[in-house]
Amino acid sequence: MTLNIGVIGVGMIGREHINRLANKLVGARVVALSDVDAKQAEAVAVELQGAKIYPTGEALITAPEVQAVVVTSSGPTHETYVLAAVKASKPVFREKPLATTAEACLRIVDAEIASGRHLVQVGFQRRYDKGYRALKKAIDDGVIGAPLMVHCAHRNASVPEAYVSDMAIVDTFIHEIDVLRWLINDDYVSAQVLVPRNTKHTHAKLDDPTMVLLATRSGIRIDGEVFVNCHYGYDIQCQVVGEEGVASLPEPESVSLRRDAKLSTTIMQDWKLRFIDSYDVELQDWIDAATGGKVNGPNAWDGYFAAVTADACLEAKRSGAVTPIITKPRPAFYA
Amino acid sequence: MTLNIGVIGVGMIGREHINRLANKLVGARVVALSDVDAKQAEAVAVELQGAKIYPTGEALITAPEVQAVVVTSSGPTHETYVLAAVKASKPVFREKPLATTAEACLRIVDAEIASGRHLVQVGFQRRYDKGYRALKKAIDDGVIGAPLMVHCAHRNASVPEAYVSDMAIVDTFIHEIDVLRWLINDDYVSAQVLVPRNTKHTHAKLDDPTMVLLATRSGIRIDGEVFVNCHYGYDIQCQVVGEEGVASLPEPESVSLRRDAKLSTTIMQDWKLRFIDSYDVELQDWIDAATGGKVNGPNAWDGYFAAVTADACLEAKRSGAVTPIITKPRPAFYA
Amino acid sequence: MTLNIGVIGVGMIGREHINRLANKLVGARVVALSDVDAKQAEAVAVELQGAKIYPTGEALITAPEVQAVVVTSSGPTHETYVLAAVKASKPVFREKPLATTAEACLRIVDAEIASGRHLVQVGFQRRYDKGYRALKKAIDDGVIGAPLMVHCAHRNASVPEAYVSDMAIVDTFIHEIDVLRWLINDDYVSAQVLVPRNTKHTHAKLDDPTMVLLATRSGIRIDGEVFVNCHYGYDIQCQVVGEEGVASLPEPESVSLRRDAKLSTTIMQDWKLRFIDSYDVELQDWIDAATGGKVNGPNAWDGYFAAVTADACLEAKRSGAVTPIITKPRPAFYA
Amino acid sequence: MTLNIGVIGVGMIGREHINRLANKLVGARVVALSDVDAKQAEAVAVELQGAKIYPTGEALITAPEVQAVVVTSSGPTHETYVLAAVKASKPVFREKPLATTAEACLRIVDAEIASGRHLVQVGFQRRYDKGYRALKKAIDDGVIGAPLMVHCAHRNASVPEAYVSDMAIVDTFIHEIDVLRWLINDDYVSAQVLVPRNTKHTHAKLDDPTMVLLATRSGIRIDGEVFVNCHYGYDIQCQVVGEEGVASLPEPESVSLRRDAKLSTTIMQDWKLRFIDSYDVELQDWIDAATGGKVNGPNAWDGYFAAVTADACLEAKRSGAVTPIITKPRPAFYA
Repeated sequence: MTLNIGVIGVGMIGREHINRLANKLVGARVVALSDVDAKQAEAVAVELQGAKIYPTGEALITAPEVQAVVVTSSGPTHETYVLAAVKASKPVFREKPLATTAEACLRIVDAEIASGRHLVQVGFQRRYDKGYRALKKAIDDGVIGAPLMVHCAHRNASVPEAYVSDMAIVDTFIHEIDVLRWLINDDYVSAQVLVPRNTKHTHAKLDDPTMVLLATRSGIRIDGEVFVNCHYGYDIQCQVVGEEGVASLPEPESVSLRRDAKLSTTIMQDWKLRFIDSYDVELQDWIDAATGGKVNGPNAWDGYFAAVTADACLEAKRSGAVTPIITKPRPAFYA
Repeated sequence: MTLNIGVIGVGMIGREHINRLANKLVGARVVALSDVDAKQAEAVAVELQGAKIYPTGEALITAPEVQAVVVTSSGPTHETYVLAAVKASKPVFREKPLATTAEACLRIVDAEIASGRHLVQVGFQRRYDKGYRALKKAIDDGVIGAPLMVHCAHRNASVPEAYVSDMAIVDTFIHEIDVLRWLINDDYVSAQVLVPRNTKHTHAKLDDPTMVLLATRSGIRIDGEVFVNCHYGYDIQCQVVGEEGVASLPEPESVSLRRDAKLSTTIMQDWKLRFIDSYDVELQDWIDAATGGKVNGPNAWDGYFAAVTADACLEAKRSGAVTPIITKPRPAFYA
Repeated sequence: MTLNIGVIGVGMIGREHINRLANKLVGARVVALSDVDAKQAEAVAVELQGAKIYPTGEALITAPEVQAVVVTSSGPTHETYVLAAVKASKPVFREKPLATTAEACLRIVDAEIASGRHLVQVGFQRRYDKGYRALKKAIDDGVIGAPLMVHCAHRNASVPEAYVSDMAIVDTFIHEIDVLRWLINDDYVSAQVLVPRNTKHTHAKLDDPTMVLLATRSGIRIDGEVFVNCHYGYDIQCQVVGEEGVASLPEPESVSLRRDAKLSTTIMQDWKLRFIDSYDVELQDWIDAATGGKVNGPNAWDGYFAAVTADACLEAKRSGAVTPIITKPRPAFYA
Repeated sequence: MTLNIGVIGVGMIGREHINRLANKLVGARVVALSDVDAKQAEAVAVELQGAKIYPTGEALITAPEVQAVVVTSSGPTHETYVLAAVKASKPVFREKPLATTAEACLRIVDAEIASGRHLVQVGFQRRYDKGYRALKKAIDDGVIGAPLMVHCAHRNASVPEAYVSDMAIVDTFIHEIDVLRWLINDDYVSAQVLVPRNTKHTHAKLDDPTMVLLATRSGIRIDGEVFVNCHYGYDIQCQVVGEEGVASLPEPESVSLRRDAKLSTTIMQDWKLRFIDSYDVELQDWIDAATGGKVNGPNAWDGYFAAVTADACLEAKRSGAVTPIITKPRPAFYA
């Protein structure tokens, strides 16, 4: 069986997902496109040989041949699209973030519950990374005992001027927010943000690095470094300290080199390459689940929880204080 | 475009490739099957929903809907099938080894040359492994300068009694024979085999471990350990020493663990998992190339060269002497 | 020239230092001993063949043949001994801590300044560890640029019931307090302590693990994990994040082992072995410096600063709040 | 008790040992010196404040105040000195090699046996290296089971023109010859030498790299790479493959660095630093043993065995053939 997919938004990320769906993954075909820039949609449609172009996302969603929807549009419209897909009872994959505000995320959660079906997946692709999965398996298998602390770092060689302080949380650390919660099977209850002195490689509108401290319901403590002008490469570190031992995220495979007085492996420069395989696994998993009428991956509730946590981190940074992370009670629907 | 594939031989390896073609890779479909065990072929066909069963490999090969052939049958018949596919001018993927003898390989080479088209690929999947590819890229980019020596090891936790001494060369070291030749872009000129004392974990019909020494045309020296009852896991090591540095095959990604007084990573036990991804990449590459009428991977000449080298290693072990590796001159067709 | 040393306190640590001075180091001899337990002093003197026993530390200090003093007594007397040595203008090596309270440390500082000579060294031996020295050299050489953050961990397999919560700071983290300040050439300005949920391996009077957060004058942020029932071994981690790169304390040398499905190195169990070499280097350096009338190592001011910092950490743990670290201004004497 | 030592030969290595004896080690003093260059001996004596200068090594050896002798002279005289020390019944430490020919070594062996006392130690310092000791302990403890193979490499960044082919064996690989025999508790029975093509960084009189293959009495196979213009640093590798696992020599401790797109540790450039600590341990052990009338380290028989093995390697290189390593039967004296 082949799942007929409509894609809303054919910008860079949209085209990458379309390429995956068309050329790398199985069980799906892109049959419909929509974009505010109709020309761009047409250009993509030509390559796809046969995808139909719809004037609006809403039209695409309700088109009878569309069985599932990928929303990669940007801006405030995507809440509308996700809600429309839910209303149409069609599985929808939404790139992170689920929506621009926690309130919008909550509206999606409520709509999904009202629909009675699990339809929404958010694009937190790290849950599909081989390394994180191995780390989670070690934890879930009890290899390190009950987790007590997590030390992690999210480093990027450099960012452009358009990247400002809040993005360290909402664009960057948001990945840790989601993946750590999944990793340790726990929810956050408070956030604190520390601001070390800035690296000279940052710019006027960006505090860099930043340290985020999270506490969980069970008392696990997380310290997360966000350092987006670390200069040396894209580097994701995650160490979980448990009652019996410590497990660390694998370093990416690399040729080991003895040269020029150094024994070295290579650190990636391009963040796009670090989790590139996980995007394929993520979308294939979504296709397979959607074909079976399910959602396996990060759901609307996860998207909402991440949004609330990110908001608390931003508030914690502004206030300098420990800030509670307060969500609605988890609905039984997402138990 | 979808490539219509016929598969001859639906044993374990055949079914694995069929599963890849049907469920994981793109651009191909299995339309025809043949097996000496017709019942087994029927069982597989049922799952595939629509593949036609042919009474013989020859019939499958000449069937008009079959555009390309995968030969995963065992025994002496496969030379016949590869030759038939060449005769029918259809791309053919043959699991390693290409044929049971160097002479048979040479007949395939001659037939392919006579056909005037590159049609034959041998299943040496390591060339598609991410780690070996990274190692080759480092060498080809000149990172370590001109190669001078290669130290490698092929270790397996244990083997059954059915695995006897010759298999250390023809089933196990054969992978190194092919991949090293590709890695260093050179041909072998002589072989020597050393026999250390046996591990107590071996059995009566198997010398284990074994050391194979190869010399290349340009004077590179290779020492290869084959140790198939190493007891601790499946472990593939490869270190290339060049004029400017030394490059080593990456260790497979693994969670790093601090536990029980040890800092450790995991060594795989199951050889099937070590190169599992490379089988997908290999077959996808073959599909893509075959669709375009080409062969990118290890070809008939490579299969022949590996067979001659393996024969020389066996002779070297029997004689204890340095044994020349003598092939026909490389035809311009394979330049 | 041989330095004549008197040792006050011949308990376990005292005897270890005496053994160093007598059998492993050069340029010194132990000529005088004193201990509240006179029998024990006599037993040690017998082995030393010729050391004279003094009834009190004060008598030993003023004995004319004693040129330098090692104070390894415990309890509140040691402030007295250090002050007496300063008064007698004799170099004195005092095991950490310098004194039991910050006020006592300050009295020593004041006395030393009044004496006009640098006479006091505190036994923070990590500054003499090969690994920390290499790390400091990398930082001082600018290899990682200006430091911005330090992530560290001090883990011990287990502790006895006598080890209670405050000791996590004053006995354990005190080492980080001194060595990090030296490592990054900066002073602390505030402390905060986080208390993750306890490991099940702790006991009623010990919160374990603990997270200590320090901020420095220049804005460097330090997060330090103290986990003394980590179960897997004695493990000291230190990572310094700078503007150009990240440097980590070397792992101790260990045979690398492939066995039982693991690639592993050994993690020490016994904390005494981890820095064993550094004690020799430390005391040899003190002998050499004392012989030349100098103090190279951690001085009275360092001892005072560590005491004030430890007090602030204890207060921070009690209050849960960010606690300022307030010392007297650094006297020019210690510039 | 202090051992009175006479040193014959005050060249670079002699002066290094004198410095150790005088300033770093305990239990010994240098009381006598001799050198063909009397001026140099005088210069050293001045620094030592009181060592007496003897016109000849023989005179030094028989001087009544000399209790033990260190022979660091070069050239053919040293056999004479070692024999004279044996005749005088004084412990003697001789830098490697024991003598310039296997025959000369055998004369020393015979003289020592005739003397009835163990007096001679050869300066193979690797047996005192912390890493090799840890590796030997793992082997002796049975951690990897019975050894079957050893893979090793001795790499040096570059050598001067004065370093010619035979030196790859007699100056460089001689260290592996001794230390591996000790490591695996076995004797060699044959040698073979392979000559890969030369690195472009070598010079006219030096084949580089070289591969040495050794077989032991019990059937262990050793492959040893000697590569003295490897360009990237001084690098000693040793991997022992046993029936239950594989143990590798530790990499020297090094700060781990994330910088410039690389995760790296440093590889030493200066061979003198790699085993610098082992020289201290070696000489201290010799002092302690000599003081007690014993030899713990590599003895005259080890020096003889190494010389015979090196000769066989040279012959193997000349002939290209597998060359037997034939020694006298091991005397009961060295059992």
